[in-house]
Amino acid sequence: MTETDRTTALDLQVVEPLPEDTQRYFDICEEKLGMVPNVLKAYAHDVDKLNAFTAIYNDLMLAESGLSKLEREMIAVVVSSINRCWYCQVAHGAAVRQLSGEPALGEAMVMNWRAAPLDARQTAMLAFAEKITKASSEIVEADRAALREAGFSDRDIWDIANVAGFFNMTNRVASATGMRPNPEYHAQAR
Amino acid sequence: MTETDRTTALDLQVVEPLPEDTQRYFDICEEKLGMVPNVLKAYAHDVDKLNAFTAIYNDLMLAESGLSKLEREMIAVVVSSINRCWYCQVAHGAAVRQLSGEPALGEAMVMNWRAAPLDARQTAMLAFAEKITKASSEIVEADRAALREAGFSDRDIWDIANVAGFFNMTNRVASATGMRPNPEYHAQAR
Amino acid sequence: MTETDRTTALDLQVVEPLPEDTQRYFDICEEKLGMVPNVLKAYAHDVDKLNAFTAIYNDLMLAESGLSKLEREMIAVVVSSINRCWYCQVAHGAAVRQLSGEPALGEAMVMNWRAAPLDARQTAMLAFAEKITKASSEIVEADRAALREAGFSDRDIWDIANVAGFFNMTNRVASATGMRPNPEYHAQAR
Amino acid sequence: MTETDRTTALDLQVVEPLPEDTQRYFDICEEKLGMVPNVLKAYAHDVDKLNAFTAIYNDLMLAESGLSKLEREMIAVVVSSINRCWYCQVAHGAAVRQLSGEPALGEAMVMNWRAAPLDARQTAMLAFAEKITKASSEIVEADRAALREAGFSDRDIWDIANVAGFFNMTNRVASATGMRPNPEYHAQAR
Amino acid sequence: MTETDRTTALDLQVVEPLPEDTQRYFDICEEKLGMVPNVLKAYAHDVDKLNAFTAIYNDLMLAESGLSKLEREMIAVVVSSINRCWYCQVAHGAAVRQLSGEPALGEAMVMNWRAAPLDARQTAMLAFAEKITKASSEIVEADRAALREAGFSDRDIWDIANVAGFFNMTNRVASATGMRPNPEYHAQAR
Amino acid sequence: MTETDRTTALDLQVVEPLPEDTQRYFDICEEKLGMVPNVLKAYAHDVDKLNAFTAIYNDLMLAESGLSKLEREMIAVVVSSINRCWYCQVAHGAAVRQLSGEPALGEAMVMNWRAAPLDARQTAMLAFAEKITKASSEIVEADRAALREAGFSDRDIWDIANVAGFFNMTNRVASATGMRPNPEYHAQAR
Repeated sequence: MTETDRTTALDLQVVEPLPEDTQRYFDICEEKLGMVPNVLKAYAHDVDKLNAFTAIYNDLMLAESGLSKLEREMIAVVVSSINRCWYCQVAHGAAVRQLSGEPALGEAMVMNWRAAPLDARQTAMLAFAEKITKASSEIVEADRAALREAGFSDRDIWDIANVAGFFNMTNRVASATGMRPNPEYHAQAR
Repeated sequence: MTETDRTTALDLQVVEPLPEDTQRYFDICEEKLGMVPNVLKAYAHDVDKLNAFTAIYNDLMLAESGLSKLEREMIAVVVSSINRCWYCQVAHGAAVRQLSGEPALGEAMVMNWRAAPLDARQTAMLAFAEKITKASSEIVEADRAALREAGFSDRDIWDIANVAGFFNMTNRVASATGMRPNPEYHAQAR
Repeated sequence: MTETDRTTALDLQVVEPLPEDTQRYFDICEEKLGMVPNVLKAYAHDVDKLNAFTAIYNDLMLAESGLSKLEREMIAVVVSSINRCWYCQVAHGAAVRQLSGEPALGEAMVMNWRAAPLDARQTAMLAFAEKITKASSEIVEADRAALREAGFSDRDIWDIANVAGFFNMTNRVASATGMRPNPEYHAQAR
Repeated sequence: MTETDRTTALDLQVVEPLPEDTQRYFDICEEKLGMVPNVLKAYAHDVDKLNAFTAIYNDLMLAESGLSKLEREMIAVVVSSINRCWYCQVAHGAAVRQLSGEPALGEAMVMNWRAAPLDARQTAMLAFAEKITKASSEIVEADRAALREAGFSDRDIWDIANVAGFFNMTNRVASATGMRPNPEYHAQAR
Repeated sequence: MTETDRTTALDLQVVEPLPEDTQRYFDICEEKLGMVPNVLKAYAHDVDKLNAFTAIYNDLMLAESGLSKLEREMIAVVVSSINRCWYCQVAHGAAVRQLSGEPALGEAMVMNWRAAPLDARQTAMLAFAEKITKASSEIVEADRAALREAGFSDRDIWDIANVAGFFNMTNRVASATGMRPNPEYHAQAR
Repeated sequence: MTETDRTTALDLQVVEPLPEDTQRYFDICEEKLGMVPNVLKAYAHDVDKLNAFTAIYNDLMLAESGLSKLEREMIAVVVSSINRCWYCQVAHGAAVRQLSGEPALGEAMVMNWRAAPLDARQTAMLAFAEKITKASSEIVEADRAALREAGFSDRDIWDIANVAGFFNMTNRVASATGMRPNPEYHAQAR
């Protein structure tokens, strides 16, 4: 594997051959997305780690929730923007553009979420995600009350906290390992 | 469930009855730890979320790694200290005291890791975990090179990044949801 | 002028009619860029202010310099990213994509300049622009010496300082007045 | 030119001879201020740059405005104090002392503007200048509304933003180039 | 004196013999606390400095005050936690555990005071101590008014300010000199 | 006592009559300084507190030390500038001007100590005082080693730490209580 084929700055090899289930998952990615996201290849040096990652990712971003998939992706990008994670801003910025059909919304989540024309619900949601990212130790009951006032249920609050928390993990893993986003994302949904 | 029985500030109920596997897992916790850690009860309002959490947790903290279990717990506490997460400092501070047999080491990880008498390897590891937590976007190749110089393999660097990343997630989930540690931890291994 | 026609959040009207010279300048913009950048309309409530702004802007970004136009735009975007200025990241991000022919480079300047594959000269230049933006009071002779070592002349250092300084001004003016970028920028040079 | 004659840490020479207009401007400075401010000599290595600088400076600080000249100088010093710019605190601190006739007011703008006995209008103005300097990306409509409530027009808000923005530029240029204030300022209007 | 006998990282010797009064004071410490706190030995290289330190310490922490001794120790630990002072968190964390009879309260002061179940008075007191520690220059009359509203007299406010101020001194002295807490503290009142 | 006679924002009265020793001390101040510094009047609502304060102050700033009185005042002003304490910058800024005979040096300590022409010893001393003030928990042996290399003894390091620590206390007490400097300071030694 040449330097430029690597998905991170670490010398870790994808296991060969991949277990059948994993290969099938990667094939579906290729088919549906036109690529295997590099984060999956990065984790694929250890199939248990890959499976643990995809399980939590898929539950958070795709399972039933009071938050729409777009809202979850908006949280993802706002958190990744605060943490200035190259990989996650590229990949999830594309997702916001795609799910919303509004390229400028994806840009605003990356550049400054306060510049986007958001309603009160989304503003409350992103303000909470921001506080989770920058000052989680200062969260008090009043912060949760503000979300309930904006119409969120306690289960929704759980989901906001977990999505925001998750990207605070992946942002750091990606930055610490020098993870590189697939170049295909840049031109998507512009 | 009265207010004081809750494990978080959110009104989310443990599913009843728990699936057989989960119940068995909780029973083992009771047997081995004398309690079910509240974080598990907090996630148990949704079994898929609980399973995803325990899978990634167990892989990171208990699976084979070039990092000892104590080292992984030291990272956990240092990250949780920077983020000032009440739950995680209490629970993992106890783990460091227990695994090391040195109560003062657990205290130092909570209070100021630079005060602990660490060797060059552990200093490099915790300095990297600190940078991951506070300034991950500024990590460059020189930071990874410093770890290699201190004797860590690329796989070890992956593990440090993922353990540090994980507690940056759980710290925020715990703080955002007002998660309460089991009181048993405080007196353990003093 | 309806709310949505405004270029800022302030109720300030473009002078009517514009002086001949200004009208001609705006016509050239339309012809060459397909639009009049909103920043010019924003300043056009007072022609003296507009002229002072365009004079300093054109001198800094277009006049002879040891820095290429692309390098000056890279500084512009890095500074605007640190300050999270919506207007300037949008407009000058497009300029970097266009001048470099590399959409990903424009994205990297916005998202995290350290993720871009830069040579030593550009790295030194952007590190200095970052320090100018975040901690100018801590700049000492050693910082200037590092630029000279990277091949910059004293005049080049003057230019880096002034371009970085200028965007620290415009970022704040744009954010404080709620300046809105022309929507055309988003899709340019993707 | 010996080291001590330099007005910055950069080796840039004043053009010789100066164009007639510039020489006349410098002569007027000598006559009215007893000196040519070093910032003008620093820019005078390139007459176009000097002219662009003086045009924007004179428009902002001396032209008609709803803000008094003293108020503009107060903004200048507060911004320069936050950025800890040696040149601008010295030169504009003197201006506040002179224009107000209150030496202690100039000192308070340098040391901690909250210590000065200000009315509601000035407090709102300086609080906005502070936010522009420290956290411009977090400015929202409520911040502008607070200024309107304190009696400022939208044009006044434009002027506050531009004066505060300007000193965020010059502070950085001065610090990055090691600009030295004329020693005469220190004893003025004490 | 071997390295491990030192109470700081500095090579400073306790005066020998100690003046009679000092020796008696140390003897009382041994008798009542089972040890001479290392901070006293650290200062004992100069008896005037030791006396000045103990005079201000005893006045602040033990003299008559509207604040209980426990409240003063809570302020001590919260300030020391923000400053991450190893010595003071260890020593005064033990004092909070002892005076309150609640080990978890001492832990919460160290780890995150917002996690403790405090009444309105104590919350106001610790919020003020936190602002004194992190942003004293932004304290305005409204902050003092909030304390009066929570039931504190002006003399109480003086005492909060002075206790919080004092630990901002000792934290820095301890950290700057590498002061080491007596190991006995760790197990006390668990 | 009218509002304007107060030395702080708190309603605390100077004890009447003052004990003889205190009155004599105040008389000496009047005679030698032309005023009683307001900090002394502020503490004089409780003579024990005043005595404890003056004892530690006089020991630190006036007793024998490897640091000159000017150097101790330079530390005082640099610390007070970082903390933006109005009272201490005014009072100790005057002291630096007076002791050094260089008004510009006092200004530089207030505005940005890096702008002053300092030798290696003073630079090391002030860099350490700055770190003590801003990031004391990150001080490690290398920081102390740098001071020894610059010619300081371990006793000198003790003194730097204690002077810097002391002003981190008084800055906070002064700001928290709204302490007002005597107006005489402003014009002194200009």
